[in-house]
Amino acid sequence: MEPYKLNHRARDLCDSLESQASELRIKVTINSDVTRIMDFGVAAQGGLRAGLALARICLADLAEVALVPRRPELGSGPALQVHTDHPLAACMASQYAGWQISHGKYFAMCSGPIRAAYGGEKLFDDIGLREASSHLVGVLEAGKLPPEEVCAKIANDCGREAYHLTLAVARTASVAGTMQVVARTVETALHKLHELGFDLKRVASGYGVAPLPPVASDDLVGIGWTNDAVLYGGEVTLYVRGDDDTLAELGPQVPSSASADYGEPFASIFARYERDFYKIDPLLFSPAMVTLVNLDTGRSHTFGELNPNVLAKSFGAV
Amino acid sequence: MEPYKLNHRARDLCDSLESQASELRIKVTINSDVTRIMDFGVAAQGGLRAGLALARICLADLAEVALVPRRPELGSGPALQVHTDHPLAACMASQYAGWQISHGKYFAMCSGPIRAAYGGEKLFDDIGLREASSHLVGVLEAGKLPPEEVCAKIANDCGREAYHLTLAVARTASVAGTMQVVARTVETALHKLHELGFDLKRVASGYGVAPLPPVASDDLVGIGWTNDAVLYGGEVTLYVRGDDDTLAELGPQVPSSASADYGEPFASIFARYERDFYKIDPLLFSPAMVTLVNLDTGRSHTFGELNPNVLAKSFGAV
Amino acid sequence: MEPYKLNHRARDLCDSLESQASELRIKVTINSDVTRIMDFGVAAQGGLRAGLALARICLADLAEVALVPRRPELGSGPALQVHTDHPLAACMASQYAGWQISHGKYFAMCSGPIRAAYGGEKLFDDIGLREASSHLVGVLEAGKLPPEEVCAKIANDCGREAYHLTLAVARTASVAGTMQVVARTVETALHKLHELGFDLKRVASGYGVAPLPPVASDDLVGIGWTNDAVLYGGEVTLYVRGDDDTLAELGPQVPSSASADYGEPFASIFARYERDFYKIDPLLFSPAMVTLVNLDTGRSHTFGELNPNVLAKSFGAV
Repeated sequence: MEPYKLNHRARDLCDSLESQASELRIKVTINSDVTRIMDFGVAAQGGLRAGLALARICLADLAEVALVPRRPELGSGPALQVHTDHPLAACMASQYAGWQISHGKYFAMCSGPIRAAYGGEKLFDDIGLREASSHLVGVLEAGKLPPEEVCAKIANDCGREAYHLTLAVARTASVAGTMQVVARTVETALHKLHELGFDLKRVASGYGVAPLPPVASDDLVGIGWTNDAVLYGGEVTLYVRGDDDTLAELGPQVPSSASADYGEPFASIFARYERDFYKIDPLLFSPAMVTLVNLDTGRSHTFGELNPNVLAKSFGAV
Repeated sequence: MEPYKLNHRARDLCDSLESQASELRIKVTINSDVTRIMDFGVAAQGGLRAGLALARICLADLAEVALVPRRPELGSGPALQVHTDHPLAACMASQYAGWQISHGKYFAMCSGPIRAAYGGEKLFDDIGLREASSHLVGVLEAGKLPPEEVCAKIANDCGREAYHLTLAVARTASVAGTMQVVARTVETALHKLHELGFDLKRVASGYGVAPLPPVASDDLVGIGWTNDAVLYGGEVTLYVRGDDDTLAELGPQVPSSASADYGEPFASIFARYERDFYKIDPLLFSPAMVTLVNLDTGRSHTFGELNPNVLAKSFGAV
Repeated sequence: MEPYKLNHRARDLCDSLESQASELRIKVTINSDVTRIMDFGVAAQGGLRAGLALARICLADLAEVALVPRRPELGSGPALQVHTDHPLAACMASQYAGWQISHGKYFAMCSGPIRAAYGGEKLFDDIGLREASSHLVGVLEAGKLPPEEVCAKIANDCGREAYHLTLAVARTASVAGTMQVVARTVETALHKLHELGFDLKRVASGYGVAPLPPVASDDLVGIGWTNDAVLYGGEVTLYVRGDDDTLAELGPQVPSSASADYGEPFASIFARYERDFYKIDPLLFSPAMVTLVNLDTGRSHTFGELNPNVLAKSFGAV
């Protein structure tokens, strides 16, 4: 499949979504006649289908995303299921929100295939998959739509012009913004494995599910809930290759429960560290439950377990 | 998205379904060379895909409908999942079976977007969404296909000719007829909220699941089972806007358990009232479990619970 | 719908899949410029979507196949859901692996619509549905891709030339090979009913789910796990017509638990019979749980139950 043309794939998807804008309740504008801005949840009130679509853009359209019933012990309501056969490209080179956009007063977490075109993150030294692309598609988790100068800067950082750029935007405290984060079950497991030194090229496919939390009215609350959905309610199955020894060694460290910070709603942990994100154990960020299936040896092991109690505590609190 | 062109959407869907008629096991005929009659379950033996399709027609193709595994405590077999970002248009202006067709000996419960073109129900004074349309698409829950004069009357009631009309028909005691009723989880919750005086424009999106009951051989039994599937096995999540006070006040009244008639299979309740439908508490008709997620405040509450015992009692009895 | 043109349908699906080959991680070659060989899991590393696609080819594209969350008591990870309104054609005339290909050192279990074109199995005397077709599509469960002479022989057995032939191939110990077997829940129930003398024309629709086991590295282990997924974790609902007496009589014999060989992982049973497949009770092969819904009488009964203990014992052993 390589080269993947991640931005090209996402651009095709965005073109198709634009033609269904009113049905998806998204709003598409051309910023100063230059950059295509797709509002999934800032001023626009994108719904459940907008959330599924936004998650697909993040994944460069290399994964399937669907609503499914959640496990009964996690309460009533939908869960988000994702599966991909291109986990490194879809989740790490594209979906991971690894590019922080900060320009003047504008701040956004940027994910999507534009990161592969930017290529400025150290992560790409490890995973490869940088790409040159005439089109750039990024997803911004942000409370505001990006002004013209931010669009210009983003394009410039990628060596392109602002008219090459499509930006899909949603705040965390929106339906679509919530969904695109909760669709990060497989990505979170991969990122944790990468932090632990695991060679991600060994991961052939991934499958994940997590409950859709309530939608917060405040972005900070939303960050807490979406994190908790994965940390305490997310289950991932990764199909991997290679030896069993590294799996047996690393496996127990993969689920969120391996972190000393595990056990409280994210909001409490954040408060405990006086809202300094970087004091939180980075190894906390992984699904509650991870199953590693070794395609080369047939062995499989499940690590961690779901924690309905913390979820109930988290989602019930405003 | 407004104007929605509900009938137009449904007509496009029907055209596509007509081309897959044999695969869906539906039968499409032109009644006296005038009205398109799509038999999903009267003489035709429409299957599971026909049921999914019929539910979509009811919803004016503004919702996703799928088979999913049911909750383990509700036994083995499929459940019907539905979600929509246009609940008022899809469920109330279209899916709700609010138009009783009665002409000579012919009787049918009519749903689908034709109701918005007819506009004769008082409901439309509250919700708006009446539409003028050159095409009319209705779904009839009826034991017989409509004769020519009934088609002419229906079209005439809408100010149109019979050749503008497509009618999809299934009896309750058919696979597709059963499925299209069980796909009414979100609709039932909305209708109950409307009865309670809630402003439905506050509902942004809806998600619902209910177990697919056995398919009855008798329409009356089928009416019992499909009602029970929703009353005792249906779960709905509604994403709403506005204040929390009305939610806290109305919420406890939304699930079926709030009705004094709750607790027995529908067939028993019906018999108790000597088969007089209008003696049954109209507030009985709602899902077993309803979660209201307030997008404006981040608060969410779940009301009611599933009742596997009544379901087992209902579905086991013939 | 009849004649079904099963091979024609599957060929159209294969054409579409060929155009997505790199995304599906399958490899399509033309064997000696003659036969189209689609490698889903021999040298190619087909993923989860390849498995869904391979299952659809087996079913002549007459069924829906999807990944869904599995029942919590069966552990974490995906399950495979299948439903069809053409069970006889999709499952028996096509999906059932009833044609053993053995030529020199080459051995494969052959399924797919080519069996209806071959028509050499006695089964077709009972079910009909033999078809003449200019295109032939077969699915081979085999450890190796078929050499030219095997392709020629297969085509010749069907009265055609090798250039009429498409063969999709995966070993059991591959992701796609595992999935296409676990997608056989409905087929296994039908086959068992046929063995018990039930008239399969009575089955109108079928719905099944089974957990996706780990993927074995050894074909023999894979055969054990995929069988166990159905025998101890498979649930099927069949919508049937006709009298209740035969259902009440045959029903208890349908689930796997009715067999004297039930209760141990398949690998143990196989070892007990000194690896002589034909000494195993042929009536063992059916889903753990079968619900028969009689569309003509409204009665439904569930037979058998899931056995998470044997599944855990099976999937945990390598």
